[in-house]
Amino acid sequence: MLRRLPLTCLMIVLLTIASEASSGAGGHWSYSGPTGPEQWGELDPAFVRCSDGRNQSPIDLADATVAGLGPVQIDYAVAGGRVFDSGHAVQVDTPPGNRLLIDGREFVLLQYHLHLPGEHLRGGESYPLEVHFVHADAEGQLAVLGVHFVEGEPNTGLEAIVARLPAAPDAPAWMPEDVGPAALLPDARTAFRYNGSLTTPPCSEGVRWFVFDTAMTASSQQLGRLRATTAGGNNRPPQPLYARPLLR
Amino acid sequence: MLRRLPLTCLMIVLLTIASEASSGAGGHWSYSGPTGPEQWGELDPAFVRCSDGRNQSPIDLADATVAGLGPVQIDYAVAGGRVFDSGHAVQVDTPPGNRLLIDGREFVLLQYHLHLPGEHLRGGESYPLEVHFVHADAEGQLAVLGVHFVEGEPNTGLEAIVARLPAAPDAPAWMPEDVGPAALLPDARTAFRYNGSLTTPPCSEGVRWFVFDTAMTASSQQLGRLRATTAGGNNRPPQPLYARPLLR
Repeated sequence: MLRRLPLTCLMIVLLTIASEASSGAGGHWSYSGPTGPEQWGELDPAFVRCSDGRNQSPIDLADATVAGLGPVQIDYAVAGGRVFDSGHAVQVDTPPGNRLLIDGREFVLLQYHLHLPGEHLRGGESYPLEVHFVHADAEGQLAVLGVHFVEGEPNTGLEAIVARLPAAPDAPAWMPEDVGPAALLPDARTAFRYNGSLTTPPCSEGVRWFVFDTAMTASSQQLGRLRATTAGGNNRPPQPLYARPLLR
Repeated sequence: MLRRLPLTCLMIVLLTIASEASSGAGGHWSYSGPTGPEQWGELDPAFVRCSDGRNQSPIDLADATVAGLGPVQIDYAVAGGRVFDSGHAVQVDTPPGNRLLIDGREFVLLQYHLHLPGEHLRGGESYPLEVHFVHADAEGQLAVLGVHFVEGEPNTGLEAIVARLPAAPDAPAWMPEDVGPAALLPDARTAFRYNGSLTTPPCSEGVRWFVFDTAMTASSQQLGRLRATTAGGNNRPPQPLYARPLLR
């Protein structure tokens, strides 16, 4: 069993993440035009890592070193959450209790959000959707799980989100109590692993990244409804790998 | 055979490294006191990565992921070079022609220099000496090989350096034409690998790091002569690993 984090630790982490996110309020950013990804690093001094970082995300998942990493240890037992549009992505803030164990450290799931099209490529190939599950440990270190979706059968977890799509930003809705984040994960938990960053400003580094080998499916209708929430896509282009090993 | 880099590329790389090194001239730094490692990040705006970086070197080489990396591909056939004291370390600038092949990229050896005691730990343990071989590719990306030394038999490569130890900084001497950098490397070329930084200001990240499994030996007299060139040691303390995988 994973040890429970003291609530005070969790609050500190949440406040840290929130303050990091709001520090970008002074620097409006977007996915195209003069405030698009190529300019993020120049929009705000706090965003400098977006342009000068050597450990940025997303990347093209190609030429991985085979390290026999074994499955990612996930304990997502708590359902529900609050659906909203952050202005940059459709997001679900999750109640406490969902956990991830990496390198002997416990990370708590804070939220998951959707990128259309997906951000990580695979050997140059793009996916229509990628869901990012964002976790933090007691020291505020981050770990993100990515799941790719291809067009196919509808997904239950996505259906609950689509049914609650906010009409406007800041109009939240609540996920049903019987649909949790696990509904969006593949059964096979093997993943690519590398050392990266947030894919949005301030592009903070030191993020443990995992992208599952196995893609999930979403129906063409689900993808269409979700795509309509983004103005031409909310995906940062792939970043150079530089000195980083990519593991599998 | 490794392809030769055009001389113009090499010159650009050398100038880049030189300008990066001299950008620190405004911010005097040292290994102790008010300009010591804990303060490097505050001494000069160009040194900020020393304090806020999440991918810094050195580290403690412990709990590596076994990835069966295979030996590092090294082609060090050119001997000679210029021995001097940079003020921070005893260093040998090497003539062109020594190469390293990593990730299908060619890196050229620029210089090697000595840290006493060593910088990388192994499971918390320190070594009396560590030699760093610094390479750059045509884009200016860096790769560094580290070799640990324990006290034992004298080493031929170190002997040539000790015999030419400059009496003062900026008093260079030339290495003999029959002693090359290969004299300081172990025969077994398996190594730890990780993604790190320069271990001196400006602590630039995006450095491919390799530290050999096998330690070499240096005599107690060699270590004593070399240690006398440093005022109480020129080793940066180990830095947190954060999100980085360490491979072996």
